[in-house]
Formats: sequence, C-alpha cells, structure tokens
Amino acid sequence: MSGRKTFSLAELAQALELEFQGEGETRLLGIAPLATANAGYLSFLSNIKFKAALQASSASAVILHPEIAVSYTGNCLLSFKPYLSYAQASALFDPLEKPRAGVHPSAVVVAEDVDDSVAIGANCVIEQGAQIGAGTVIGPGAVVGANSRIGTNCFIHANVTIYHGVSIADDVIIHSGVVIGGDGFGFAPSSSGWQKIHQLGGVRIGNRVEIGANSCVDRGALEDTVIGNDVICDDYTMIAHNVVIGDGTAMAAACQVAGSTVIGSGCTFAGNVGVVGHITIADQVHITARTLITKSILKPGSYSSGTGMMETGLWRKNAARFAKLDELYRRVVSLEQQLKIQEKDEG
Amino acid sequence: MSGRKTFSLAELAQALELEFQGEGETRLLGIAPLATANAGYLSFLSNIKFKAALQASSASAVILHPEIAVSYTGNCLLSFKPYLSYAQASALFDPLEKPRAGVHPSAVVVAEDVDDSVAIGANCVIEQGAQIGAGTVIGPGAVVGANSRIGTNCFIHANVTIYHGVSIADDVIIHSGVVIGGDGFGFAPSSSGWQKIHQLGGVRIGNRVEIGANSCVDRGALEDTVIGNDVICDDYTMIAHNVVIGDGTAMAAACQVAGSTVIGSGCTFAGNVGVVGHITIADQVHITARTLITKSILKPGSYSSGTGMMETGLWRKNAARFAKLDELYRRVVSLEQQLKIQEKDEG
Amino acid sequence: MSGRKTFSLAELAQALELEFQGEGETRLLGIAPLATANAGYLSFLSNIKFKAALQASSASAVILHPEIAVSYTGNCLLSFKPYLSYAQASALFDPLEKPRAGVHPSAVVVAEDVDDSVAIGANCVIEQGAQIGAGTVIGPGAVVGANSRIGTNCFIHANVTIYHGVSIADDVIIHSGVVIGGDGFGFAPSSSGWQKIHQLGGVRIGNRVEIGANSCVDRGALEDTVIGNDVICDDYTMIAHNVVIGDGTAMAAACQVAGSTVIGSGCTFAGNVGVVGHITIADQVHITARTLITKSILKPGSYSSGTGMMETGLWRKNAARFAKLDELYRRVVSLEQQLKIQEKDEG
Repeated sequence: MSGRKTFSLAELAQALELEFQGEGETRLLGIAPLATANAGYLSFLSNIKFKAALQASSASAVILHPEIAVSYTGNCLLSFKPYLSYAQASALFDPLEKPRAGVHPSAVVVAEDVDDSVAIGANCVIEQGAQIGAGTVIGPGAVVGANSRIGTNCFIHANVTIYHGVSIADDVIIHSGVVIGGDGFGFAPSSSGWQKIHQLGGVRIGNRVEIGANSCVDRGALEDTVIGNDVICDDYTMIAHNVVIGDGTAMAAACQVAGSTVIGSGCTFAGNVGVVGHITIADQVHITARTLITKSILKPGSYSSGTGMMETGLWRKNAARFAKLDELYRRVVSLEQQLKIQEKDEG
Repeated sequence: MSGRKTFSLAELAQALELEFQGEGETRLLGIAPLATANAGYLSFLSNIKFKAALQASSASAVILHPEIAVSYTGNCLLSFKPYLSYAQASALFDPLEKPRAGVHPSAVVVAEDVDDSVAIGANCVIEQGAQIGAGTVIGPGAVVGANSRIGTNCFIHANVTIYHGVSIADDVIIHSGVVIGGDGFGFAPSSSGWQKIHQLGGVRIGNRVEIGANSCVDRGALEDTVIGNDVICDDYTMIAHNVVIGDGTAMAAACQVAGSTVIGSGCTFAGNVGVVGHITIADQVHITARTLITKSILKPGSYSSGTGMMETGLWRKNAARFAKLDELYRRVVSLEQQLKIQEKDEG
Repeated sequence: MSGRKTFSLAELAQALELEFQGEGETRLLGIAPLATANAGYLSFLSNIKFKAALQASSASAVILHPEIAVSYTGNCLLSFKPYLSYAQASALFDPLEKPRAGVHPSAVVVAEDVDDSVAIGANCVIEQGAQIGAGTVIGPGAVVGANSRIGTNCFIHANVTIYHGVSIADDVIIHSGVVIGGDGFGFAPSSSGWQKIHQLGGVRIGNRVEIGANSCVDRGALEDTVIGNDVICDDYTMIAHNVVIGDGTAMAAACQVAGSTVIGSGCTFAGNVGVVGHITIADQVHITARTLITKSILKPGSYSSGTGMMETGLWRKNAARFAKLDELYRRVVSLEQQLKIQEKDEG
C-alpha cells in the first residue's frame, strides 16, 4: 500500500476513455459524493434527481452525462454511464497496492504448482496438490486445501479457508473469513444417532465472482456446488451443498440458499433473502429484502414475503389477529352468505 | 489426501455388512445420484417415488431395499435402510485422508498434554494447559485457548478459534471459521455507558457433535453453555450464552438461539429459525424455516411463523392490509353485530 | 491465564467501593446465580421478583439493594445497582489473564509503530504502517492491515482480520472471526457484467466498543463507515458500507444494517433485526427481534414486524389467508356498503 494516488483531469479522461470539458491540468486527489466533495475531488452525477447537488458541490471535476454537461460550466468528464465511469475511476484511485509476487518465508507451501507471479502472504498454508494461477494474491493466514485450484489474478484475502478439491476460476475476489468447501449438511437418521454423509462433491466457482466476508459455500454431497460467472455475493452469503447459481446473479448480505436449489442467471436478491432447498428459480427473478422463497419461481418478476414494520403496540394487535386470520376469513364468508340469504328473503 | 478410492461390489457388501446381488467383482469408482450416475458408479434408491430413475440409471450398482431388489436384474446391495447405507458408503469413498500424527514445525504448541497420535497442522496455536485427545486433528491456523480440552478423534478444521476454558468431548467435527467460547452478550447499563459483564462460564460440547462453518457458540455468563451429544448444526449456527441443547437435536443453517434458552432433545429446526432468550422448548419439537420462536413450546409438534411468498405487487397490498388487520377484525365484529340486530329487528 | 481468583467479602467491598454486612473474612471463590450457588460463592439479587430465591440460596454472600438487605441476615454487599455491581465483580473474578507484553517470535510484524507494552500473539501479521497503542492485545492468528490504527488497551481476539486503513479507538474488544474493513457491496451494471466499485473509504470505530464473534463491518465506498463510542454488538453483526451508528447503541446477535443507513444513539436492537439501506433511525429507538426496518424511523419508540408463532397446521391456514388479505379487506368494505344500502332501503 502506497500513499494516495492523484491524477489530472486529462489523465483521467485518457484512462477512462472519456472526453472532458474544462482545465485538463486540474489535479484530482480522490473521489467524493457531490454533497461532501471538497476542492481537489472528483465527483459524479449518476441520477438526474440529484442535479441540485451538482450546482452546490465544491468538487473540482464531475463525471456527467453529456446532456447535463451542456449546461455545466465546471470541469467534467463526459460519460453516457456516469455511475459506471465512477466505478472505473474508483479502481484508479484505490490506494491498495497489490502485494509483490513471492512466497512469504513464514508461509507453508507444500503445493508445487504455484506460479512465480503469485503473492503468498505471511502464515498462509497451501496444501499438497493445490494449484495457484498467475498473478493471484493469497492474503495472510489463508489456507488452501489439497488439490484445490485457484485461477489467475484472483485475490484471496486474509484468513480465508478453502477446503480440498475446490475449483476457483480467474479474477475472483474472496473476502476474509470466507469458508469454501466446508461439508454440506447431510446426515442419515439411524438408531444410534445421526450418521454423517461424507460430502464427496466439490465446489466450482466461475470467473469474475466476488464473495463477501464470512460467507460459506459448502461442498456438494455427490456432485459439485456451482457458482456461475460474474456472480456477486455480499457478506454472510450461505450457499448450501449442490446449489447451482446462474451467471451474473447478485445477492446482498446474508442471503441463505438451502441445498440442491437451482437459481437462474441475472437474478437480484436483496439482503437476507432465504431460499428453501430443492427448488428452481428462473432467470431474472428479483427478490425483496428478507423474503423467504418457499417454492419454485418459474417466471421472471419481483417476489416478496413478510409484513411491514409498525409501532410495537399496533403490531402486537395485528399479529394477534394474524393468528385468527383463517377464522376471520370464514366469518366474512359467513356474513356474505347471510346477506345473500337476507336479500333472497327480501327479494 | 490420496487419489480416488475404489471398491468391488463384494468388498462394499462386506464393509457395509450387506448382502448383494449380481457380479461381486464389479469395480465401483464413486457414488452418484441415479439420474447422473455413469458406468462405474454406485447409486442408491432411498425413496420408492424415484423408482423410475432406477430403470433409467446407468449406475453399475445400486443400494436397494430388498423388496425393490426382487424385481431388479442389475447389481445391487440389499439394505432395509438404503439412505443410511449410502451414508455409510460415503465414508468409504471419501478421498480426504486424515493428516498424519505429529506437530507441524510451524505450529506453536505451549500445551503439554497433547497425545502423540494428534495431528496439529501448520500455524496452529495451542495455548497453555490445553489438552488434546488421541487421534484428534487440528487443522492449519486453528487456535485452541488456554485450559481448553478436546477429546479423542475430533476433527477441528482450519482457522477454527476455540477460546480458553472450553470442553469438547469425543468424535466432534468443527468446521472452519467456527468460534467456540467467545464472550456472551452481557452488559449492565450504567451512567457512563455499558458495563461489560465478564463471561465466567465456559462451553461444554458432547460426543459426536458436528458444527458447520462460521458458527458461534458463546461462553456462559456464570455457568456453561451446553451442547448435548449427537447434536448437528449447519453453518452459521449462533448459540448464545447459557443455552442448553438436548441430545440429537439438529439445526439447519443460520439458526440463532438467544441466551439462557433450553432446547430439548430430538428437535429439528429448519434453516434460519430464531429463538428468543429465557424460554424452554420441549423434546421432539420441529420448526419450519425462518420461524421466530417467541415463547416456550411445551409440547412436541410442528411450529411456524411468517407469511408465504407472492409477487411483490400483491404482497405490497396484503402487507398494507396487515397493518390494518386489527381494525379489519373489529369491523367484521361490528358487521356481525349489525346483522344480528337486523335479524332481531326483522324477527 | 492463571488459576481461579478468590476474594474475601471485605476485599470485594473495598474493590467495588461498596458497604458490606456480615463476616468480612468470608472467602468467595466465584459468582453464581442464586438458585445454583454453592457455599463459597457470591450471588446477586437484581430484581425483587426473585426475592424468594434469596432465602433458598446457599450463596455465601449476595449483592443486595440496601432496602432488601435490611431484612437479610447473611453476608451481603450493599449496592443501589446490584446488577451493575455484579458486572463490576465479574471483572475481578475473570480468570483470563492479559497476555504478557511482547511480540511472539512467530508473529510477522512489518509495522514499526507498535508500543512496547503491546502483546502480539503467535502467528499474527501486522502489516506496514499499522499502529498499535499501549496495552493492546492482538490474539494469535489475527491480521492487521496496512496503515490501520488500533488505540490503547484494546483486545483483538484470535483470528480477527482487520483490513488496511481502519481506525479503532481505545478500550475496544473485537472477538474472533470478525472482519473489519472488507469491501462494501458496490457494483455498477455494465454490458460485460458487474463493474466493481473500489471501496475507497475506511472504517472508524469509537472508544469502548465491543463487537461479537464473526461480525463484519465493511469499509465505506467513498467516506468511512462509522461506529460511535460505547456501541455494543453481539455476534454476526453485519454493518454495510457507509453506515453510521450513534453512541451507546446496542445490537443483539445477527443484526444486519444495509448501506448508508444512519442509526441514532441509545438505540437497542433485539436479535436479528434487519435495516434496509439509505434510511435514518432516530435516537432511542427500540426494535423487537427479527423486525425488518423498511423505512426511516423519526421518533423514539418501539417498532416491530413479522407474525407470531403458532402450530404449523394453523399457521398454514392463516398464511394462505394472508395471500388474500387485500381481497378480504375489499370484501369487508363491500359488506359494509351493502349493509348501509340495506339500512337506507329499510329507512
């Protein structure tokens, strides 16, 4: 990690392949939101709703849609997708330097197939038969189990645990505390207690996947647990054995997917969505926060469960009535019938 | 970890103490589900529902109930409990070899009471006064705190943290990222903020317990947190201080049990069940996914909370009505009274 | 960690700055609840409800409110806040000794600004530019990233991971498995998949904060994620990027706060509360277990969501009716209108 990186407006425009308006030599020290950016900072306007903040901002340059830029007199980078350009700029300003290639003397590397360009941190353990591809970083204290394969240009952060027989493709980021390949939850009842079902499958993770801190991806019972390409998972994602997740699906923090469920591609799950086991979710399914998905979803769309939040006093009353909801329904049906009878009587 | 293990049908029959039908010398390379088993694989039919898959399967041998086997012409192992036999077979095919006994040179073992047959992985730390029983494996990077005792034939996976004063019996499996004996959440309010209550109890874990990755079992405030024999917990199980869990209880992923609650034996909790503190759950209680248990359950049975999943548009309308459920109830009562009055008037 | 600590009643009275009644030389070996305390143990009566337990207890001394002590003939410590005095006494009896200052030879300490009084455990990694204040303990296997600062008298337990650029103030306790400063979940959609938004902010944690095992506090996108002074969080707390938590707020296990939400001071969240992103919670807001906070809360009070628990058979019926709740509401409205029309007709 070095000091802060700075760029001139013209340098940024070149790096991001964007046109700019204004003084190209303007020095930019970092990125900040419009509302809090001081002089020297780059900002961005991703949503026209916040246009008022643009005029009020002290940012020294702003990433703007060309249509907005027409009427803007300050320094700006012109982008048809300002939010995407901000994302690209964030990579340039990131002060985190990639560790130098090499194996730290305190690391225990039994594996032989580790590329020379790999950076293996202090106190790492790389077990026999593991393979680590070119340009990959293994953070301090991480453990890579026997015969597991990690592709090129991955970043496995500190204290990650990867069990044996796990396969991770290229450009994957795995955050600290994640456990990949722990045993799926499989037991057969027997007269002498639970008989463990050894989990003989592995885990396969695609390209450009990111997995948030303290997540768990369990190994399959017989076949592999599979995470497709371009899947992004926030912290505490729980993927049980034999789950399959399609390309590009995104899961916010603490989503939990039970065993053998198949999830399509391009889905978005808000925080703490739960999914029961052995079901199928179609492509392009979007789930609101804390929903429990209790059955297969066969068509794209947005799905939800739960109740809204309210003051506890009112909630108690409503929750008590929920316990009588079926009864209430029947009473309404009975009222309807009574009224019909009355109408008849009167008719 | 060695290469793949293979068995002949006759060898498997002997190892599992089962009869077989067919060619005993058939070589079996692994286990696979009926639908995807290739030649060379063992499969099993645990549920008569899937009998069609049996005829379609390319498996080279199948574990079958004798009643099914009567009409089956292929190779099979005869078992009255095919699923249990599959579980037992899975242990035979598991390629994960137990690490060799011995202390890795990079491990820091201050404790003196470590059996010669124990395997202590790279970069482990075993603090003063800890005891590790015969045949136990401590994975790389795991930490065992002062005066903690681990029994015989346990498997403590990589990067597990066991605090001081924890007691773990025999044949226990603890997956990576688990923390046993962290402080329970105890604080007394004071005029200068929260006064920490030091957690002076420990944790006691019974025989044949398995705890999934990244779980937490907190130490007791004054007495111990207790997990009985044959308890199985999936990933992210959260057991708060002074909880007691009875023998043989099973918890799927992400169950959370608040402080001082006592759970019976033989219970099954589906995924992400929550339990409030200071209550009692009877034996043989079964809880559906994501239920929040808000009060003691004194009789065996199945319990639930929550709402079903639906399309978000409909859900929003229903959830909005939930906020008026008590009002709705009262309006129905009022309608009923009105109708009775009318009846009287008309009577 | 040494053996058990013991105190005479008089010594305890002096240490806790309390008056006592009875025999000052009474030896006390530990603390226990009234119901299970044996001779030799100190207990406490924090709630007058449990007064019956006081008479039945075998405790050798009890912390009592002076009004209760008047009619108590045994040994006691007099406190106007017995629960707070118990908390203070628990610190005295804690057998966990602070590790001795010094850097374990197996630790990898690249940083230069580590106070001589710091205790750095086996296999720790302290990266370049990190600062560790006087009296702080870093447990075995913990990793402190580049340029992160940890204040004085903190206790960072084993296998904690602190990323680069994190700032932790004084007297902070962080339990095992916690990850501080992992990347917030920020991605911009692009035609070629998700473009990662590098998380350029840090994390700032105030004084006297405690964070439970396996929690995650993500770094900010552009500005810092902030946890105020005296905040206490139980295990599995998930704090997303750019969240701000006010002083003295308490969160029980598994609370999840989504990005950019601002939470006031003096709030208490029961277990597994969820909070959506980009909202504001006022000071002194109290939330019941498992509530999902879906919108800003602008005034103090207690808030809830969800449904009560019931037997699964009844629950299924009620949950099915929930799916028709809006329809039911409309039918009730229609009944009301019909009755009004009838009344008119009859009028």
